[in-house]
Amino acid sequence: MNALAKHLLLELKDCNREVLNDLGFLKRILPEAASAAGATILGESFHQFAPHGVSGAVILAESHLFIHTWPECGYAAVDIFTCGDSVQPEKAAQKLIRELGAKSHSILEIQRGILDTG
Amino acid sequence: MNALAKHLLLELKDCNREVLNDLGFLKRILPEAASAAGATILGESFHQFAPHGVSGAVILAESHLFIHTWPECGYAAVDIFTCGDSVQPEKAAQKLIRELGAKSHSILEIQRGILDTG
Repeated sequence: MNALAKHLLLELKDCNREVLNDLGFLKRILPEAASAAGATILGESFHQFAPHGVSGAVILAESHLFIHTWPECGYAAVDIFTCGDSVQPEKAAQKLIRELGAKSHSILEIQRGILDTG
Repeated sequence: MNALAKHLLLELKDCNREVLNDLGFLKRILPEAASAAGATILGESFHQFAPHGVSGAVILAESHLFIHTWPECGYAAVDIFTCGDSVQPEKAAQKLIRELGAKSHSILEIQRGILDTG
């Protein structure tokens, strides 16, 4: 039973609150995380919220990477959605955990697109 | 125990394969689905793949909406990630299920950002 895509859902807690609100930092770090996974970047869209919080999407040839931050809670939700065997989404996850200074995290892996081929 | 966000993961199967590969249609339908949910659109990024397939992200004031399509399989993965009580992501989900002609679907709801407030 093969899935078309692998989806990692990261819950990053007790992060460095300053970087969670730093749009410039996140705009640099997300593409770097995608590159660390071996993915190819096709586009991006970021938004800084007032008074705090950032949303960012990076579209990849192999799917996407998403972040939403709640600096006031020290929390970030990250999704890494990839297809194909050439990328290693776990590498992007580890880079983001490290760069955001998450003292606590969980990763939920979900297989997407499990199709009945019978 | 309150969550910061609600995340719907849609598996849409046996869809209309033509619309899954129609970039113009998807660029219109995704923002419409966001509006149906009562969300405010802040930005978007779409990409058409060769020979087939589309990836699209819509960034919302209340988070994001994402689609990846595999027209050759009649399959689309959709994520609707929202925060706040003012939006109804289920309405976006129902619109997309309908517009993509999915004969079979599942929706997985995940609470994101359940923080220890103790």
